[in-house]
Parts: sequence; C-alpha cells; structure tokens
Amino acid sequence: MANMLPFPSDGQVKEPANLRDLGEPLIDHSEGQLFLNEAFKIMMEEVLCKGTDVKQKVCEWKEPEELAQLLDLELRATGEPQQRLLQRVKDVAKYSIKTSHPRFFNQQFGGVDYHALAGRFLTETLNTNLFTYEVAPVFVLMETEVLRGLRQLVGWTEGDGIFCPGGSTSNMYAMNLARYRLFPEVKSQGVWSLPRLTIFTSPESHYSVKKGAAFLGIGTDNVILVKVDDGKLHSLSVCFYQGAVPFLVSCTSGTTVQGAFDPLDRIADVCEKHKLWMHVDAAWGGSVLFSEQHRHLMKGVDRANSVAWNPHKMLIAGLQCSALLLQDTTNLLKRCHSANATYLFQQDKFYDVNLDVGDKSVQCSRKVDCLKLWLMWKAVGSTGLAERVDKAFFLVRYLVEQMKKREGFHLLRDPEYVNVCFWFIPPSMRGKEGNADYQDRLAKVAPVIKERMMKQGTMMVGYQPLGNKVNFFRVIVFSPLVSQKDMDFFLDEIERLGNDL
Amino acid sequence: MANMLPFPSDGQVKEPANLRDLGEPLIDHSEGQLFLNEAFKIMMEEVLCKGTDVKQKVCEWKEPEELAQLLDLELRATGEPQQRLLQRVKDVAKYSIKTSHPRFFNQQFGGVDYHALAGRFLTETLNTNLFTYEVAPVFVLMETEVLRGLRQLVGWTEGDGIFCPGGSTSNMYAMNLARYRLFPEVKSQGVWSLPRLTIFTSPESHYSVKKGAAFLGIGTDNVILVKVDDGKLHSLSVCFYQGAVPFLVSCTSGTTVQGAFDPLDRIADVCEKHKLWMHVDAAWGGSVLFSEQHRHLMKGVDRANSVAWNPHKMLIAGLQCSALLLQDTTNLLKRCHSANATYLFQQDKFYDVNLDVGDKSVQCSRKVDCLKLWLMWKAVGSTGLAERVDKAFFLVRYLVEQMKKREGFHLLRDPEYVNVCFWFIPPSMRGKEGNADYQDRLAKVAPVIKERMMKQGTMMVGYQPLGNKVNFFRVIVFSPLVSQKDMDFFLDEIERLGNDL
Repeated sequence: MANMLPFPSDGQVKEPANLRDLGEPLIDHSEGQLFLNEAFKIMMEEVLCKGTDVKQKVCEWKEPEELAQLLDLELRATGEPQQRLLQRVKDVAKYSIKTSHPRFFNQQFGGVDYHALAGRFLTETLNTNLFTYEVAPVFVLMETEVLRGLRQLVGWTEGDGIFCPGGSTSNMYAMNLARYRLFPEVKSQGVWSLPRLTIFTSPESHYSVKKGAAFLGIGTDNVILVKVDDGKLHSLSVCFYQGAVPFLVSCTSGTTVQGAFDPLDRIADVCEKHKLWMHVDAAWGGSVLFSEQHRHLMKGVDRANSVAWNPHKMLIAGLQCSALLLQDTTNLLKRCHSANATYLFQQDKFYDVNLDVGDKSVQCSRKVDCLKLWLMWKAVGSTGLAERVDKAFFLVRYLVEQMKKREGFHLLRDPEYVNVCFWFIPPSMRGKEGNADYQDRLAKVAPVIKERMMKQGTMMVGYQPLGNKVNFFRVIVFSPLVSQKDMDFFLDEIERLGNDL
Repeated sequence: MANMLPFPSDGQVKEPANLRDLGEPLIDHSEGQLFLNEAFKIMMEEVLCKGTDVKQKVCEWKEPEELAQLLDLELRATGEPQQRLLQRVKDVAKYSIKTSHPRFFNQQFGGVDYHALAGRFLTETLNTNLFTYEVAPVFVLMETEVLRGLRQLVGWTEGDGIFCPGGSTSNMYAMNLARYRLFPEVKSQGVWSLPRLTIFTSPESHYSVKKGAAFLGIGTDNVILVKVDDGKLHSLSVCFYQGAVPFLVSCTSGTTVQGAFDPLDRIADVCEKHKLWMHVDAAWGGSVLFSEQHRHLMKGVDRANSVAWNPHKMLIAGLQCSALLLQDTTNLLKRCHSANATYLFQQDKFYDVNLDVGDKSVQCSRKVDCLKLWLMWKAVGSTGLAERVDKAFFLVRYLVEQMKKREGFHLLRDPEYVNVCFWFIPPSMRGKEGNADYQDRLAKVAPVIKERMMKQGTMMVGYQPLGNKVNFFRVIVFSPLVSQKDMDFFLDEIERLGNDL
C-alpha cells in the first residue's frame, strides 16, 4: 500500500508553532482533502467491501493488551505524517468488528444501507446543530417531516416528537413528560413537592426504564415489575400502595431478549381507566409498523401517549437514530423542557421562532439524526422498508424450520419477532436432561461456543441467561444483506463449534 | 451535472416486493458503493470546497415555506432513482449552513479538521456501539486513552470519565454523581428519601444546569444563582436555608456569552470546607488547558471533582464530542448508573468484563465519539492543538485592537477568552447616549444587521440581550481556518450592513 499513496512515508511532521504566522489559516484544504479522499478509499475497501464479504472475518480477535500495543494509542506532543495516519485508519478498520457483515447477529444494529450511510457522511460534513432554524434550516424542516412520517405509521395525524440520543433517553423523556403533565410544579420545585410516584412495566422491559427512574430521581424501587406470561405484560392491577401515585405504564413492543410484544390494546384500557400515561418502548419493535403483514403486533399503539422507536435498529439507519413520538398537541415537550435561553432562542428574530425547536430537548448541542433516515426512505420508499421487515420475518421462519429439523437446537419458544432464542445441546448431553448437572453443563456451552467463534472470527451472536433459564443464544435477523445461505451457515457453524462439548 | 453521473436519470424505481426473493440480499453493494462515491464527490465539492471559500456564501437564506417546497421533503411509498437522490444530496448541501466557512462566527462549533472528519466517516462506516469490548474493542481502549489524555491536561494522573451526547448531559451526570455520592439510597428510593438539595452556580452559567436540575427531579428553584462581577462567580456564601442541603457547585470555565472563567481556586476552597462536589463546566473553555500561555485561566481545575469538556467546540472535533472527566477512583460512575443487564454485560465472558464500559452510562446505545478526536490529536499532536488555541487568542487580540480604532464598535468589556461582545452604534446614534429612546433603538440594531447578513449570506454572527444590557453581538473566533483578513472583513461588513440604521 505504501507506494500507492500520495504522501511521503515519513518526515512530514509540521513545523513548530512559533515559526508560523498565527494570523493565517492553520489548515491546508488541499492536503486535508487529499487525506480524506485516501481515507475514504480505505473505508470503502476494508469496511464496505471486505467487511461485508462472507469469505472474510467478522472480527479479528486480539487480547486487549496486544490490541493496545498494535494500535499505539498514546497521544503525544508532536503530530504524525499523513502516511502513518492512513495506516492508523486501516488499523482501526482492521481490528474493529464488521457490524455490516452478513454473519454479525450479535445485536440489534448492523448491516449497511448506502443511502443512509451517505446521509450520515453528509451530516458529518455539514456539522451543524439541530437547535435553531438559522443554523439548521434544512434539518429543522426535515426532522418535522420524518417525525410526521413515523407518527402516521403509529396512526396519529397530529402530534409532536424529537430525535434523542438513543432509546434510553427517549424512555426518560416519556417519564419526565408524564410526571410534568400530572405535576407541572416538579420542574421548579423538584420531586419533594410530589407524592411518591410509581412506574409499571414488565420484568422483560428494557433496563433503561430502571436507569431512567434512578436518573430522574424516582428511584428503581418505584418501578413496579408486573408479572408476565410468555415475556408479555398482559394485565395490570394498579396499586396505590403506601400513598404512591402510579403515573406511567411502560409497555414494550419487541423485548430485547425474546422479542415479545405486549398486548397494547389491553394495557390501553387500563391506562385510560386510571388516567395513566401509556408509553410504548418500541425501540426495537417499532419497525413492524411499516409492514401490512406484521403491524398487528402493535395493535392499539395509537392509543399510547408516547412511543420510542429506533430506526437505527431494524431499519439500519445507523447509530444513532432514535425518535420519541408524542400524541400531544399542547406543546408539552417544550413546556416541560424549555429554559428559554436568550442567547440562543431570541424572540426578536426575523423568522418564525417556533422553528427553533432546540428548547424541546434537555440537550443543547443536538446531532442531526434525521437525514440518514430521510435519504434512505426517499431511496426505497415505505414499500422498500416494509419489504425489509417482511424479509426478516421470512428468514426467521426459515431459520426456525431448519432448527426444528436438527437435533441439537432447542427453541425457548416460537419467536413472535426476529429474535430467535435457543439452546444448543451438544451430542454428549442429548437425552440427559434428567442429570443433576445438566443445567450447569448447559450454562457453559454458549460461552465456549461464543469464545470460539470470536477467536476464529467466523460469526458473532449473543447469549444470556433469563430468569431461571441458563445461558441460551439469541440470534437476531434483520439485516437486508442476509440470505438463506447465511441462515444455513449459522446452524452449521454452531454445530461445528459446539459438537465436541 | 446530469450527464456526468453513472445512473440513468429516471425510471430506476425498484420492482415491487412480491416479485423479489426474500431469501436473497436486498441491497446491491456495487450500486450502493457507486452511489456513496458520487455522494462523497458532491460533499467534497459543495461543502468542503465551495463551503469554505470566502467568495461563496455562508448561507443561502430561504423562507421556510419556500425551502420546504424546494426540498420536496415528503416521504412516499415508492423509492426514487439514484440520479434524483444525488440531486437531493446536492440540495441538502446547498441550503444548509456552511459551518466550516471562515465567516461563520455564529456558534461555538464550526470549522473543519480533515483528520477529525475522516475519523467521523470511519465511525459512521464501522457503525458500532460503545458498550462492550466484544463489539467495540478498538474504541473501548481508545476512549480510555483519550480520556486519560484529557485528564492529564486537567492535572489528574488517575480518574474516570465517559463521552456523553453533549455538555448538557455531562453536566447532568455530574449532578447525579454528586447526589449519589452523598445519598446512595437515591438510586433505589428516589429523591423522596433525601433532604431537599441545592446547587450553586452563577447566573451566567449555561442553561443546562437548570435543565438538568429539572430533569433529575431536583427542580430549578433549587439552583441558587450566586451574584457575580464581570460574569464570574467569585465567592459563595453557602446557605443551608429551610433545611436544604447544598451538594454541588457548578463553576464555569468559559461562559457561553461572555467567555468568562470563574476563579476555580477560590471556589475550591469553599467546596473543600463544606465538602461540596465541585463541578467545572468547561464545555467551552476546557481547551485552554492545551495552551501553556492560557491554561492559567483554569488554575485550580485539578481540585474539582468533575469537569465537562467539549472538544467539538474549540478543538473542532465535530459534533458531538463531549467528555465528562472525573477525579474519582472508586468506580462511582458505574455504581451510580449500572443496571447489570445480563443480556449485555454477562459476567462469564472469556475476557476481562471490566472492559465492558457501557454500564457507566445511562444510555444503552452509545455513539463512538473518541475516534475523531484521537485521529486529529495524532495528526497534529498536543502542540498542534495548543497552537490553534493560541491562534484564536491572537486573532481575538487583533480584532479587539481594530474595534477600538473604529468609531462604531463598543465592547461590553475586554474579552478574557475568544468571545468578543460588542454593540455596533450606527452613525445616526453616536453621541446620543443620553436620549430616552437610545437603548430601545440600540436593541433593534443587531437584529436588523443579522437579518441582512443572513439574507445576503455574507457571514453569520449571533446576538443576545444579557441582564439589563440590550441586544449586542457576540463574535466567537476559534476556527483554525480563520485569518486576520476575515477579522477585517467582519468589521467592514458590520459597518456596511449597519451604517444606515
């Protein structure tokens, strides 16, 4: 590679500060653009070509000490020549996980959509802040339109919303809004002025409900976990115990581990009766709303007060892309969060200051997260996005059928969504379910297979225990890059890695 | 442009879903990479070349209704041909603000560093999540190293830290940590179990202190604004009124409007005496720590408990890049925020699970924000970053000298940092300070000049009132792309736009 690059391989360290004229620009655009161009080629080659090629590794495992040495991370006083910096770009790419690879099944992000990626590059290049129309005219209007598009799928013709830095933040926003709607004095006086509040959710809801309750001063003990069957919150017996006031039910559409959908209509009945804020954490499951065939999983979502939906998950818009959608039309979001900073949200501007949306956020700087989704949506249309959702369900059905034909795969249950949870039972353990050490041995299978696949770099899939269930794998299928062949490979590979255990 | 592109100009709409085999990949890599390549060229040309050229406009002002029409934002059922999508990339670039332009003085972000931008592209291309070593091996180690580098500049050889989605979140984290250190039961029991808490800060501190207090259930009334001179918090008379317990002092290094630095050593004395958590919001000012010449502005920062520092501001690392630094060595951050999700932070992994840093955050998905800073730091070294800070101070000194030579410019005070706050007095108002309507007329000058510069697209600078001071301009100088000539242009342009008022 060294000879292909337009920079000399050493010696291009910048001259010291005191020799340069501080009145002149310090950055050379041609040199900078040349570097960016070369770096772009490396990304294209290493991450987008090799990194999506099934003949190449998903990961290049290194022990932390060795990796730290290879990367030479230390930050020093003097700069480095361009050539060495390009090598660094290559190294970072080489030792990073190829989340776009068709054999990356580890998490609910991954895959690559080139239109979304172009949107993300453009976002970075334009480097602006989504708080006022004056610095982000295009994105203020675009965010509004994207939120409108998402709300329409929920079933709302009006409403509000905002993009947040991740689903956990969206969930926290819902809590804060629900609390403020009931007790607006909380904004100025804090929680001390209120009765004790409680949140209802299922034990399989995302951990951010508890994190949010702790952060917002509500406390994790005030998150009441309601019993569920099949991973679903079916009913609520709302308790006003010890003077505590229930104020929010956080339902889940697509639980993290099992991909279960709470029955929203049934929960909505209870919320209406008790005047509780109904929040739907659809960070993972929300994208079923694109599909005519599968949107029934979220029937009743239009009765919610708020919905959190992360298009960076199933829609592969790219991290981060997380929308909080609200049915509210009373400007609750702004009233709850605003601080009216006069240096930013001046009221005597020459344009409609309602376009300055920044005060709806508890952030000040806020990244533009709408462009990547907008450009992808424009590129394939709602039907194209629906097709991706349908494809994921189709492949999961295929995978499950194949699993049932093979001896070593035991499903926890038939999947409702695209999470497939299963134990792999190595031949040596088959038929020995009655043995006293069976569960202990089974618990150790997944970690060993995981270690082997990571060290060989052939694929990535996660495992976890859940309640009294010992470690099982959770394979997640959603990337539009994945084919039936990858499903077959997945099963063969689990067998190959685990058959001797 | 139409003929230069490798895509036909129409008709390339994808075939409908039901005709395609859902078992096969839905994305064509060659077509996608071709699109990304073409889009990259447009970004290079429109944003990085034209967008940094002083002969070109900073902004292309359009009224919202007209802009919405031009952009055709609506999201539809069917996709669009590649050619039209490339035109959309071009349009988004055209109508967006050129924040890298040497005449963008509007906010504390802007400018472009090509190494940082390459780091941002690579971050987007790799699309991973900074929560576990298994999905982000390079970035877990890199974040640790970058945080170490920043802490060293604060003066700490040990400690902790995390990158947050913006300075407001960093400030909230500091509040939550301070609260938890004093009353660990808050995590489970909420604020009800605690005495009322108060936060001390200056009226010129960032509005996120109040937003954070509201969000965390502390309440804005419990943020005590302490009187200041020259925009600085000089002393604290800590009051335990009505049984309230002070628990945190939020000092500011580089206030948003005036760029004032609170005297940290003096405040540290009070915090030590009363055992208060000392937080330094150095989101804007922190970068002076790179400069031998200017780091005295933050003398005493090493006595703080926490420091918020946004390298996306003066260091132009790109939005978002915001570090929270902690002196703590007791794992407070993790203890305070952790939820120990078993599906993500399994304890039986085959590597050291202390490398799974995600549970330090209240987010689950967390963007990689360290690579852009790391690559830029590697490229120019600490001395190169110091030089940029020194250059900004140098240009500000020059600007202020020139202002003092011109009749129409009245400084609010001599700047301590790189914020220059001033009134422009049009010729018709000079010498009429005694007139009854003088302040009313003066208040209207800045908004008119602002409107004119936006509509002509020649430059961008912000204005605001502050306390009893009517609208004044705040020009911020930090981009390494800016030269003395741009300073001269700035003054000439204000005169040109405002001389007839």
